[in-house]
Amino acid sequence: MVAGHIDADPPLAIAGIRIGCTGAGIKHKDRDDLVVVEIATGATCAAAFTRNAFCAAPVTLARRHLEQASPRYLLINSGNANAGTGAAGLADALTTCQLVAGAAGCEAESVLPFSTGVIGASLPVALFESPVPVALAACVEDGWVRASRAIMTTDTVPKAVSRQRRIGGGTVTVTGIAKGSGMIHPDMATMLAYVATDAAVDAAVLQDCLTKAVNRSFNRVTVDGDTSTNDACVLIATGRSAAPRIADPDSPEAVEFQAVIDEVFAYLAEAVVRDGEGATKFMRIEVAGGLDERECLDVGFTVAHSPLVKTAFFASDANWGRILAAVGRAGLRDFDIDRVTIDLNRVRIVEHGGRAASYTEEAGQAAMQPSDITVHIELGRGTASAAVLTCDFSHDYVRINAEYRT
Amino acid sequence: MVAGHIDADPPLAIAGIRIGCTGAGIKHKDRDDLVVVEIATGATCAAAFTRNAFCAAPVTLARRHLEQASPRYLLINSGNANAGTGAAGLADALTTCQLVAGAAGCEAESVLPFSTGVIGASLPVALFESPVPVALAACVEDGWVRASRAIMTTDTVPKAVSRQRRIGGGTVTVTGIAKGSGMIHPDMATMLAYVATDAAVDAAVLQDCLTKAVNRSFNRVTVDGDTSTNDACVLIATGRSAAPRIADPDSPEAVEFQAVIDEVFAYLAEAVVRDGEGATKFMRIEVAGGLDERECLDVGFTVAHSPLVKTAFFASDANWGRILAAVGRAGLRDFDIDRVTIDLNRVRIVEHGGRAASYTEEAGQAAMQPSDITVHIELGRGTASAAVLTCDFSHDYVRINAEYRT
Repeated sequence: MVAGHIDADPPLAIAGIRIGCTGAGIKHKDRDDLVVVEIATGATCAAAFTRNAFCAAPVTLARRHLEQASPRYLLINSGNANAGTGAAGLADALTTCQLVAGAAGCEAESVLPFSTGVIGASLPVALFESPVPVALAACVEDGWVRASRAIMTTDTVPKAVSRQRRIGGGTVTVTGIAKGSGMIHPDMATMLAYVATDAAVDAAVLQDCLTKAVNRSFNRVTVDGDTSTNDACVLIATGRSAAPRIADPDSPEAVEFQAVIDEVFAYLAEAVVRDGEGATKFMRIEVAGGLDERECLDVGFTVAHSPLVKTAFFASDANWGRILAAVGRAGLRDFDIDRVTIDLNRVRIVEHGGRAASYTEEAGQAAMQPSDITVHIELGRGTASAAVLTCDFSHDYVRINAEYRT
Repeated sequence: MVAGHIDADPPLAIAGIRIGCTGAGIKHKDRDDLVVVEIATGATCAAAFTRNAFCAAPVTLARRHLEQASPRYLLINSGNANAGTGAAGLADALTTCQLVAGAAGCEAESVLPFSTGVIGASLPVALFESPVPVALAACVEDGWVRASRAIMTTDTVPKAVSRQRRIGGGTVTVTGIAKGSGMIHPDMATMLAYVATDAAVDAAVLQDCLTKAVNRSFNRVTVDGDTSTNDACVLIATGRSAAPRIADPDSPEAVEFQAVIDEVFAYLAEAVVRDGEGATKFMRIEVAGGLDERECLDVGFTVAHSPLVKTAFFASDANWGRILAAVGRAGLRDFDIDRVTIDLNRVRIVEHGGRAASYTEEAGQAAMQPSDITVHIELGRGTASAAVLTCDFSHDYVRINAEYRT
């Protein structure tokens, strides 16, 4: 965990959302691992899922249920991903939804299932039977913090945040929690995020808002380039705020709403990277001067994925040659490397295709000391820009991922 | 270093090639780090270089010299890559070529320079002055083994091989050496390879042969996905063999010649992966049943680059979920993951989108014990196939790359 970012304030309750947590003993015996989120009637709901062709049973079922009914409950478990479990896994996911539906008195289609944890092990549905009614009975408005802990896997800290904004004369509150630490890459790998607001937002506007927010946040972070089978992100608008309903995506209110949602998503995405497995450094790779955003992202992700760059940052080594070599292989057409400049925390390290004339080892080493480092890459060929967040690659990354199943 | 592959036989001399080695003290004081390869007149020469836009000064100069003259000498140094050194680096590379030319009595354009080592430090040309004549004077026909050691950087073993074949009634001998251990990816990253044969081959045929051989060998291996600034590969045909000259690329002799060259390149490429930084496992990722070779390579490289897959192999963990998740994110269109099967050393671990019914943890663990592991992925949608070679990701990879500059 790279510090420097954690909100000390507890997350705020959202009218119309109640959360219950309990322990089902799915992987560990002594912790919460089951969460039920109760959504008041009248809410709208948007969702985004992994684009990995190998997606988990709960992802498939949640997609299906979203087409069939308005969600009344989210059921989330950690410890087992119910991924790579075939037809039996799909049946298991449905069984857990039916458990919620039976205890709560709704249709199974109104329940969205989410799982995170080990891939390929059967979901132990029998373990859900007693805890599901317990979690339902435990539902409270201020259940966010406990839920943020219950969904953790290799995370070392819970991730939760709230933001408030005046929109159209009323106060809108947004609260979100997330988990994710490894297997993190665009397409929201092994990442679960649940964000709710008391704003009233039409479903189509809400979905559009979620898509934009995800593209600007979770799709711009990477820990190891691996994407997951289980990623999911849900945005719920309960409509209990006094702010006016947002129905027009181009209205000033919609723009305000997008801004506060973006803030929450940006916070959660950064928190996930800072908690990257084994991370000791948090890096913001800013790429400017590109022909378009796409090539800026290509350069940003090529640098962010490079094991040689990531291990150099772990060593606090201002190894500008490895960064420049990564920039050089990002696949840009007609690319003149001599126009590139690179700054580490505002220390110029590269210009004219080599080490900057003003550069000294001392300045480079000093720039590498903070745990937060901004790598600014200027391509010198256009006006587009983009930023990617990542972390370093440490001994502990290897240890964590070599030992995870054992 | 993952054993199992080293040729015990010493490499054979090639008539028309003499090699001299010495120590110039470029990085270490107590080892050879300078090599001169003398090429007899009348030889043909082909070369391939890194496609990284950030390429080193010697690569730029070697390309230029190849256009201007037939090479008479190769000058290779380890310890310093002369990369990211701008215009001064280019002048330094030229100076070293002039040193060889002055001592040997040829044009500087007849000398091709090659450097490998740390990026971004100035080449200490003064250190070349005395050793260059020493290396020239030391040239011998059986200098291959010593040269294979002199070009090593983070390599733990030298890489050298010879093959012989009867072609058109005469015996053709091919000998090659290579270095490379990290920053290894298609486009021949931080990899130098020098292969010579006594066959007589027209220049155009030789270049075509080299391109094919590289695409089938060095462009199918990866250690860490990073490509280098200095990659270079040279193939020399001295024409001293009794075998007939190869001038027609479609002749049976050309096919025979390609086959023996491919053998040498395949050996060297595999040797580089086996010596991958920190490697404890050697993996051959075979992908079959694709629509075309390109998508088979996409799947192969996505699996081979996945840090989660690589750390699982380091742990001898048959974590089929991570492999299947990597297959799922390789970007194939209209991809039905349920048709995929995956075998580890002939043990079926995945079928129907999940763990194979016949799979047992015991069988999976047993399959993971050898240091050589074949991962066979059947996509079930076509007839194309391709294979990629890689190695695992260990504690030592991080250690080596976090400590390399310090």
